[in-house]
Parts: sequence; C-alpha cells; structure tokens
Amino acid sequence: MQAGTDALNAAQGPARPTPEAIEAVTGGLLRQFGNRVVTSQAVREQHGHTLTWTPNQPPDLVVFPETTAEVVKIVKLCAAHRVPMVPFGTGTSLEGHVNAPFGGVSIDTSLMKRIIAVHAEDLDCVIEPGVTRKMLNEHLRDMGLFFPIDPGADASLGGMASTRASGTNAVRYGTMKDNVLSLTAVLANGEVVKTARRAKKSSAGYDLTRLFVGAEGTLGIITELTLKLHGIPEAISAGVCSFPSIAAACDVTIATIQSGIPVARIELADAAQIRAINLYSKLGLPEQPMLFVEFHGTDQGVREQAERFGEIAAEYGAGAFEWETKPEDRTRLWQARHDAYWAAHALRPGAKSLSTDVCVPISRLAECVEETQRDIAETGLLAPIVGHVGDGNFHVLPLFDGDDPAEVAKVKAFVERIVERALAMEGTCTGEHGVGQAKMKYLPLEHPAATLDAMRAVKLALDPMNIMNPGKIIPS
Amino acid sequence: MQAGTDALNAAQGPARPTPEAIEAVTGGLLRQFGNRVVTSQAVREQHGHTLTWTPNQPPDLVVFPETTAEVVKIVKLCAAHRVPMVPFGTGTSLEGHVNAPFGGVSIDTSLMKRIIAVHAEDLDCVIEPGVTRKMLNEHLRDMGLFFPIDPGADASLGGMASTRASGTNAVRYGTMKDNVLSLTAVLANGEVVKTARRAKKSSAGYDLTRLFVGAEGTLGIITELTLKLHGIPEAISAGVCSFPSIAAACDVTIATIQSGIPVARIELADAAQIRAINLYSKLGLPEQPMLFVEFHGTDQGVREQAERFGEIAAEYGAGAFEWETKPEDRTRLWQARHDAYWAAHALRPGAKSLSTDVCVPISRLAECVEETQRDIAETGLLAPIVGHVGDGNFHVLPLFDGDDPAEVAKVKAFVERIVERALAMEGTCTGEHGVGQAKMKYLPLEHPAATLDAMRAVKLALDPMNIMNPGKIIPS
Repeated sequence: MQAGTDALNAAQGPARPTPEAIEAVTGGLLRQFGNRVVTSQAVREQHGHTLTWTPNQPPDLVVFPETTAEVVKIVKLCAAHRVPMVPFGTGTSLEGHVNAPFGGVSIDTSLMKRIIAVHAEDLDCVIEPGVTRKMLNEHLRDMGLFFPIDPGADASLGGMASTRASGTNAVRYGTMKDNVLSLTAVLANGEVVKTARRAKKSSAGYDLTRLFVGAEGTLGIITELTLKLHGIPEAISAGVCSFPSIAAACDVTIATIQSGIPVARIELADAAQIRAINLYSKLGLPEQPMLFVEFHGTDQGVREQAERFGEIAAEYGAGAFEWETKPEDRTRLWQARHDAYWAAHALRPGAKSLSTDVCVPISRLAECVEETQRDIAETGLLAPIVGHVGDGNFHVLPLFDGDDPAEVAKVKAFVERIVERALAMEGTCTGEHGVGQAKMKYLPLEHPAATLDAMRAVKLALDPMNIMNPGKIIPS
Repeated sequence: MQAGTDALNAAQGPARPTPEAIEAVTGGLLRQFGNRVVTSQAVREQHGHTLTWTPNQPPDLVVFPETTAEVVKIVKLCAAHRVPMVPFGTGTSLEGHVNAPFGGVSIDTSLMKRIIAVHAEDLDCVIEPGVTRKMLNEHLRDMGLFFPIDPGADASLGGMASTRASGTNAVRYGTMKDNVLSLTAVLANGEVVKTARRAKKSSAGYDLTRLFVGAEGTLGIITELTLKLHGIPEAISAGVCSFPSIAAACDVTIATIQSGIPVARIELADAAQIRAINLYSKLGLPEQPMLFVEFHGTDQGVREQAERFGEIAAEYGAGAFEWETKPEDRTRLWQARHDAYWAAHALRPGAKSLSTDVCVPISRLAECVEETQRDIAETGLLAPIVGHVGDGNFHVLPLFDGDDPAEVAKVKAFVERIVERALAMEGTCTGEHGVGQAKMKYLPLEHPAATLDAMRAVKLALDPMNIMNPGKIIPS
C-alpha cells in the first residue's frame, strides 16, 4: 500500500501492490464473482500483452464482470486497496495497452456483449463494450445498417473506443472519435459517468465523450457505448490501379479528395507489399505501388465516382484502372489488400513482425513513405508498407527474428526513425494504434511540455491514485 | 484577493476581485498595451452580454492582444492578482457567455485575425481566433475551398470553437467539434498548450482539442486554430417543399438520411414562421410546415439527390417540390429561410426575442416540436420555429415585451418547459448555442451528478483558481 505517496508520485506510477492487497482484492472478488475470477498463469499471460516485442506483463488476476454495477464493485474494491486495474477487450491492441506493469486486476469485458438497443431512425445503437465490430455488424445487417470503423482485427468496441481506432473506412466515416455519441464509464472512485444524451449534437458542457475515447482505460472503464450507425450503401464500386511511383499514387489521392469525390476507402500498398502478394497468392500483379479504392452511394453515383477517379488516375500516369460493382468481382479486385498481412508474413515464415503506425499531413505523405523506403533498403529490412492514404496514415511491417537481439535492435532503431520522420513533417507518432507502453517515449517529442502537463493534470484529477491502467500514455 | 480560499470554494466561483487587484492589473496592462486597454463604460458594456434577457455584466476593463505571447502576459498578470478573464470574440453568443459576473478583464481577440496558412492539399488552414467565418470564406473562395460551419451570425472562429457552434450545414459537415484539427490555448497558469499536430487523425494521448472545443473559455483562451476545410462543391441544388404536418416533414427528413442521401442542409420552418415570412416578404407561401433542402456534389449527383428527395417527399404527402441549381434561383427558393429571423421579428416590431435551442434524437423531433406548438398556443405566445432538423435540433423564437415582467416570466417558464421536454426525450438543453450563464441550471437535469463532478474535476485541474470565465457552464 502506498498511503504515504503524494499525488505527484501517484501520477508518476504506483508501486506494485503488496501481496496482502492482492490477497484482499482476490478474496473479495472471489466472494462476489466466484469462478468469474481467474488466477491461472495461462489466462493471466493471455491478458498481458501478447503481440510484437513488448514483453508480457500479466496481471495478478482476471475478473469477468457482466454489468456496470459489477464493474463498480470491482473498482471500489481495487480502489480501497490501491490495486491497479487494466480494462481488457479482445487483446488485439498493438502497443502494450493491456500489460499490467504494476500487476493488479485485468477487467475482461468479454461477457459484457449485449446489444441493448438499435434506434434505426436515429441511426444509433447502445451496446456493451465487449461487443465486437463483427458481432455488431452481423446484428445490424438485416436492418440495412452498419458500423463502419474497421481496424482489421475483430476488436471489441470498448477497446476500439479506448484506442481511438479507425482503419480503412475512416477517410469517409471518420474514426471512433467521430462515431461514439455517448458512453458510460466507471471512474477510479467507483462513480458512474454518462458523458452525453442521445441527441446527435450538444453544446452542454465539456466533451467527456471525446476525453474517454482514446484514453486507453487510464481515466476509467467504459461499460456502455452509444454509437452512430450508417445505412448500408445501396451500391458499392471498387477498383485497383498501379502507379509509376508512390508520389503519383499520393498525388492522385490528394486530387481525388480535393475534387470532392466521397471516396469510402483508398488504400496504398507499396511495391514490396505487392511482391509479397504475388508470392503468396500467385497473382502476377505489376510490382509497383497500387491503390485500392471503394465508393459508396447510389448505382449511378458509384459509377460516376469510379469513372472520375479513373480519369484523375490516368492524368497522373496510372496503369489501367479496373473497377467492378458486383460483390464477387469487388472481392477479387481487393483480394491483394485483404491478404496483405498474411502475405507479408509469408515473406519470412516464422519471423516476428511489428505493425508501426504513423500519420502525417497528406501533402507530406509521399515524401514520408519514400524516405522510409530508402531507409528500409539501407537498413536491409523486409518491411512492406500499406497505408490508409486518404488520411495520411501508413503502416510499415518489418519482419525480424525476435530471438536475435541485433536484429531486434536494428528494427527498434528503424521504427524510431519512422516516428521521428513523421514528427518532423507535422505528423503524429500514432494515427490509430494508440500510445500504450511502447509509444510513451515519443509523446514528449510530439507534444510541448505544457500539453503533457495538461494531460497529466486531467489524469490526476480523475484518477488521483493512478490506479486506472497505470504506466500507459503519459510518460512520468 | 482570495488567498485564503480553498480549491473547492475557488471552483464554486471567485469573489469579485478587490479594487486594488483591478488597479494593479489595469496599471500593468496599460504599461504593456497602452491604448489597447479600454475602460470606458460603453466599451465595457458592449463586452458584457448584450443579447436577449440576460442582464449585462460588464468587465472592469477590456484589452486587445495581438499575439499568443501577449495573451500569455495578460493571463500571467491576471493570475498573479487572481483577477477573472473572459475571452471575447464578436459577442454574438446567446446565453450570457461573455458576461463578467465577477468583473475582471475581457480579452477581446478581434485584433488576432491573421490567416496564418492555408494548406490546400491537406484541406486545412491555421488561423487566429478573431478571424470570422465570413473573412475566412472570403479568403478561401479563390482557392476553391470553404469552411462549412455557419451559425448564422458572422461569429469569430475562436468563439465558434468555444461554444461548439454548428448551424445549417452540420447535418453533412459536422459541428466545430468535427472541424477543429488542433488548437493553441493559454491556460490559467500562463502555459501555452498546443493540442495536436496537423495530421488528420491521431491516437497520441488525450483529446485536448475536443476538451477546449465547447469549453466556452473556462479552461483557457484559444489563440490559434487549425481548421479542416472542404472543396467548394462543383454543383449545388436547392429546393423547398410544403408538408401537411410537422410529422410528415420530420418523417421525410429521417427517410432521406436513412436512404443515404448526403443532404448538405435540411431546414424546417413551421407554419407560424411561414406566416411571418409571408407578411414580411409578401411571398404567398402555403402556411404549412416547410422543408428547405440543399445538396452538394457533381452536376449529375445533385440532380439525382434532388430527384430522390422529391420522390421521398411525395410518398409522405408533400406539396410540389420545387428545386433549382442556378445560384439566383436557389437564392430565391431559400429567401424565406434566409429572412426567417427578421420576418419573425417583424411580427411584433420592437419586441425582444429569445432564440432557444434544444436538440433531441430525430425520432422524437416531430413529437417535441408539436408539443411545443401546442404549448405556444396554450400559453398565447408569438413564437415561430425553425430547425436544423437533420440533426434533431430546433430553435423557437418567442417575441415578448422585455419591460413587462409578467410577459418575461411567462416566456421564461415556456423556455424551461421546452428544455424539460427535450430532456425527457433523451435530448440536450442546448444543441449548439452552449451553456453560458443561462443554461447552467439545466445541466444537473441533463447530466448525472457524477458527470458534473468529473467536469468540475477537469475544470479545477486546469484552472484551480477559477479565473477563466468563472460563473459559466458548471453550476456550483
């Protein structure tokens, strides 16, 4: 117990709770939650970070609440013993968000998966945080509705809100920031905050909704979400197109957006990624940068959008622009993009990978990607690039031997250079993956000291004991 | 001076500073800012609230800074003497936002009106907070760009950010929350916070941008804004249509949005408003609820959108749907909407008016508007209604004799009933005007106590002496 720790020290990270504190919390939780408390090594490790190179730091125990009221009980018990809590969705976050560096309790929301209400006329729904995006879209399909945010993994929506996730559709539909209307969260003191009513807009006080979106569980535990929905488009067209250079592909992206074409998806794969695809799927695509585009609208609208895009692409020296509207044809055209992750891994079977994530103003994107490609060549890495280029966001996937310290060090330095490059171009160290543990060290490079101080002040105000997912986001 | 006041009392509102404190600040500012410090009664009153029935509460003095560095100097001086500060844009806010209930310094940003940069490829611009939306759009026009948020008044963009303003275009382009990419603010301690880089999206820490948007100057003074821009649409179509009932007009709005038509504006005027228009502009319109719509896109797209809207409207028993694409024809069709405010006032020359502002889930909108109309009839008021119905947001404009206490009391009670009605329908007490002084009392009805406590904690963390626009937003 840290009774003597002052507020500032608390904000800089708690010490690991004493065995007595963990014992008290475990006993209390077992009495209330029975076999929904798990302390086995395997489950604890599965609830620490399991992806990429960040070491696994398991919690002391895992509890599976079913309601907001149960989360309140857990939080009050942990707070009474000053035991850290780490909210857990599906564990697909990439920067060490779910690790428990100070031990404590992982609060697994996977049993909180009720879809409480769908309001079709209002284009919103109310859900619990353990609902995944695929579950939700399955539920919505027959109503002609969908939730657009697609980070790749079938992540929980609570986790997606917490990391401010986005993905391929963000260029048109925005990120989680834009698609959470309201949320319920349990604060460190056990109080339950509901951030907003269900009206589509409001000016009634501070935007606590957006404060919790992207807070990675460091300000409280999200237990309910009201999300915006969209009508499934009447028609979709999708196409692919090769380009002589990254610059040409980026210029076409800029021109497309500037011309007001409401592109739903515009994805870049670089030549290295296409090479991987050709090996993996035997596709025989030209090994050049490629754009994958998708348009949503009316039959006539999506044809017009595809045609106009094709005209723009041709002006910048693109290869043939092939586009289709039938689902099976669209799937075929986009196959290379869908397989990108596995194709990249097939370049070096058994290798580890790390999906980096930076975002720059789109005017700097080509420069940032091309410099990164030169860096890859000079460093001698296998590292394909894909990008949500409509947002200026791209991922590099270096493949490496995780057991070879020299190789790990080389990749770490490479990732560091990507972040520095993005920051030098008015960009951000993370467009959509979040900070977690792994990107904390870049925050002082990205934000002025006063900005980090303001973030620390907000954190301290809402979690004075620093028991909500400590050791994440804000460096001490 | 309140040296002995503890943090909690400070958060509940400071006492008025002593004459000595004001004298010290005035002297210090005069030395640094010379004739950019104004203490005349007329200018002070003009910087207090001058609209509607909220009484004028002038600041002790007004200062006109030109740079962020100058704002820092003002803030540090005021903080040293614990003197309240009230940021001022154009004074067009409607809920007493710029009043100085505890006196202090009005910081008028009207000299901070530089457009620092326009990044056409990135669709963003960097501006100072005193730039008004019309100034900005004037500057952007030749570049084929525009900033869509239109709250009616030619407000300053700093003020629009601070009140989370929106208006007619919000149904398509969102509110200020969605269109501020980053901002610079001077905190109560004189530190300068920059909330984000210029990348289109980021997951790098707490969303301080959205925390300052809508904070009404209570957390700091915005001194720079990076705003998202949009391409001026290639084509615009606009139309009008009468409906047999409010319900029919609202149902058509819902069906239009559900069907995925990306309507840029969809505005309702009720029969009372149309009656006012007919009297004011001699238009001879059918005195029924009317929708005004506007579509942005390609030539072909805006035709298709208008035609589809017309089909939907016809299904719900609408009158003839007239639509046009040429600017002069569009202006003619929308004339009634553009003149709405002045037409309403002409119903009772010399009367005061109050523009109320509530927002409900769109599925409840017809019910909310119709109950309000019955209330108007039963109360015996002249009170036309217009609404940004795509967002479920509407304004009622009761006209009254501001010198007749009985009439003022009647209108106050009426406004209170509108807010209660909206809240009972999962709505908000303000969709876009903000809280200011006048709507503070509704916040405990809208938000749970824990939510208000969390807002208070954030306020106290960033402004422990409560010197930033005290007496606004959060009730003590």
